[in-house]
Amino acid sequence: MANQVKSIGVIGLGSMGMGAAKSCVTAGLDVYGIDLNNKALQELSEFGAKAVSNNALDFSDQLDAVLVLVVNSKQVNMVLFDTGLAASLKPGTVVMVSATISAEDAKNIEQKLKEHQLIMLDAPVSGGAAKAATGDMTIMASGSTLAFEKLQPVLDATAAKVYNIGEQIGLGATVKIIHQLLAGVHIAVGAEAMALAARANIPLDLMYDVVTNAAGNSWMFENRMKHVVDGDYSPKSMVDIFVKDLNLVADTAKELKFPLPLSSTALNMFLSASNAGFGQEDDSAVIKIFDGIELPGVEK
Amino acid sequence: MANQVKSIGVIGLGSMGMGAAKSCVTAGLDVYGIDLNNKALQELSEFGAKAVSNNALDFSDQLDAVLVLVVNSKQVNMVLFDTGLAASLKPGTVVMVSATISAEDAKNIEQKLKEHQLIMLDAPVSGGAAKAATGDMTIMASGSTLAFEKLQPVLDATAAKVYNIGEQIGLGATVKIIHQLLAGVHIAVGAEAMALAARANIPLDLMYDVVTNAAGNSWMFENRMKHVVDGDYSPKSMVDIFVKDLNLVADTAKELKFPLPLSSTALNMFLSASNAGFGQEDDSAVIKIFDGIELPGVEK
Repeated sequence: MANQVKSIGVIGLGSMGMGAAKSCVTAGLDVYGIDLNNKALQELSEFGAKAVSNNALDFSDQLDAVLVLVVNSKQVNMVLFDTGLAASLKPGTVVMVSATISAEDAKNIEQKLKEHQLIMLDAPVSGGAAKAATGDMTIMASGSTLAFEKLQPVLDATAAKVYNIGEQIGLGATVKIIHQLLAGVHIAVGAEAMALAARANIPLDLMYDVVTNAAGNSWMFENRMKHVVDGDYSPKSMVDIFVKDLNLVADTAKELKFPLPLSSTALNMFLSASNAGFGQEDDSAVIKIFDGIELPGVEK
Repeated sequence: MANQVKSIGVIGLGSMGMGAAKSCVTAGLDVYGIDLNNKALQELSEFGAKAVSNNALDFSDQLDAVLVLVVNSKQVNMVLFDTGLAASLKPGTVVMVSATISAEDAKNIEQKLKEHQLIMLDAPVSGGAAKAATGDMTIMASGSTLAFEKLQPVLDATAAKVYNIGEQIGLGATVKIIHQLLAGVHIAVGAEAMALAARANIPLDLMYDVVTNAAGNSWMFENRMKHVVDGDYSPKSMVDIFVKDLNLVADTAKELKFPLPLSSTALNMFLSASNAGFGQEDDSAVIKIFDGIELPGVEK
């Protein structure tokens, strides 16, 4: 167990990263927080982080591991390589990449980390802000046995469930993308069903109640269609996030030459919603692409 | 409470009808079983039915209520009208129609029942054979207060949850159809996701485990994709049932001039599966429309 990391730099203190970082503090790890948002840095500092900064180079020699919880592969590349961080980390440092990215991007990042003798865990996460806050994320990871061993304290601190999908970098990314395929279609079809109910003069709160008590339910229906019933489109997760994630699904299918009739349709629905100006609203706002219906709290 | 029914004829002793009929026996109602299948009649008779027959006319004068649990509107019309049953029931008898049918069909059936002074409850059910067996179905019903009052002992005996959607016949049918929209798309997208996982060399049991522990889960994914993981396509509910139900969804949308991008796509997927010869297999066999993948227990 001498191998296990004692310190970790968490890059990206959004709702998921902040929860993961705090869980690591609680578990007794030396936590270093990195974000551009000074309020987030202050919050983590007060919670007990060893140090915080806008720039990871300030303490890169202190880190046994790095957890990257940013939005996309462009940001992953920026924080690891454009900043010079990868070059300044100790050889053998493990880098846990938990953004939702394509398998191809994951493999490219692994190659570039290897040039600096750094070890990658391809480790996307699921569960939302609430589970991140309690250290109960789901992590779907691929990588070497060494990477899993070294990161064990971090995985224990942040996750209720860790899946070891295999050695090959890219498998973790692919499992997460397939998960997002389901999540995205479930939101879009929830919207389609509730829109049809509105058109047929079924009260939406009653339709919601029926579905959530029957076999037509999904995790996303129950969580997101509540926002439609309440007429509350303040963003918990945004339409544009599913534009991004369903584009990753499409990229994966293109790479594998595989047809995806439903998720390609759902992507178009989220694109229509974004194009109509709802990109920064809650992802349940995809229902606003349907005309000729009245929705709670939505002016036409 | 003098109004409440004491006897009921249950027409259609498939998995749902048998469960409902037995629940009525257990609740102390006088139950009359009607089916073409003599084995089912014998089973219900041994369980304590008052009488059973292939022909409801044998005891139509004994019935305070009729519960129709057949497959489609054609069968509903046959058992109620072509047989002469409606004409032979006592005026004021309540007919609970629990098949999945269109709102338009429900209204037509109500009209014809009215000609014989019969009262209709538009009362589709959900929950599957297991919940029917324990008297825990979900019933989404519309109809007059009188119909609800008279049928109270039957609703209590068979359902864990009864939704009163309104007075107008057709609302119950519509809510059920919108529920089936979700159920059908959830099965089809479950198949799409698992097919992509197979193509990407993700072990399907692991993919199933990840999804069922994360936000991408649905009731149908958890129930039906287990059949794919096990390679067991023996029919619990068949592909052709969703061809029928998603066609009812399409009819409803056509009537309301409403676009349904995802469920129209899912209908085509089930149609492709039926056309390829899988119509009588479990509905999870919709995954067999994807080529170029290996599935557990499926020879190519």
